[in-house]
Parts: sequence; structure tokens; C-alpha cells
Amino acid sequence: MKLRYALGEVLRETRNEKFMTLRKLSEKSSVALGYISEIERGSKEASSEILECLAEGLNVEVADLIIMAGWRIKIGNEKFDHNLRLDLELTKA
Amino acid sequence: MKLRYALGEVLRETRNEKFMTLRKLSEKSSVALGYISEIERGSKEASSEILECLAEGLNVEVADLIIMAGWRIKIGNEKFDHNLRLDLELTKA
Repeated sequence: MKLRYALGEVLRETRNEKFMTLRKLSEKSSVALGYISEIERGSKEASSEILECLAEGLNVEVADLIIMAGWRIKIGNEKFDHNLRLDLELTKA
Repeated sequence: MKLRYALGEVLRETRNEKFMTLRKLSEKSSVALGYISEIERGSKEASSEILECLAEGLNVEVADLIIMAGWRIKIGNEKFDHNLRLDLELTKA
């Protein structure tokens, strides 16, 4: 999984966990609603400054967001490997 | 500590641990030498794509770089708090 997609997923999940709409996060972070939506989908890149604004709006530490994104990449990769192994085992059987 | 500085420090330390010069990393990652130097000093932002190129050049996972940067921010903040507490205690004494 690519870093940009991992960060987008972590941001969307954190926002959903806090029952916050895109509009609410946009108000709290002063980042445009459409831009947040694109960042969450991984189609736009968030600069570190924007990421810090979003973290503040979500009331979380930016450090936690990027640590979660890092683990998301690792877990995504492991899942991929797992499926690959499963495919190989099915092919063998 | 800001995310951009934390990432720069982690990149420089990882490169030094691997005894790799800026020139060598530039060759391996296809990122301009001056640009890497600015990223390491935190004066330029690395996009996620550039970060992935640098991780590949350093032969590390991009996930590990950002997890380390996240912890660097946390440790940096704790150090700051520690000094603040120390100052407060000295003021009291």
C-alpha cells in the first residue's frame, strides 16, 4: 500500500471514529472540505502543515496519525503477502 | 517537533547509519542531491512519492521511516516537556 492512500484511510477512519462530518472537520481545521475529501481518498497529497491542521481539527497527535499510517502500510503489505501465499498453496493443492 | 523536521532527521540518521553519502543516495534514489539535503534539514517537504524513492535508495521500508518520524515527534515533545518541568523545578528551588 502506498503512503498517500494509507494516510488517507487513517484520516477518514479517525474522523469516522469521532463521528465528525467532512464539513465539521473542515470548519475545525480550516482546510477546504473538497481538499480533505481528496486527501482521504488518496487522490491529493497533504503537506505536513495541512496534516498538522487536520490532526488539530481531529484532536489527535500528528505523530499518532503517521505511526498508524506506517502500520497500515505494513499490515496492507502483510495481507497482500498472505493472499499470495494462499494462492500459491491453492495452486499446489 | 514538526513532522517535516522529524522526517528530515530520520532520513539523515538512516543514511549515516548506512555510511551513505548524499551523492550515493542521490544516485540510488534518482532524487537531486541538493533536494535531499534540503529535505534532511527540514527546509523542503518530501512528497510521499519522493519519500518512497528515498526509502528505496536507502533500502528501508517507507513505513519504517514514517513510524520512526512519528516516534521522533513524540520523544522530541517529551524531551521538551522534561526540560520545561526541570525549569519549573529550578524556579521553585
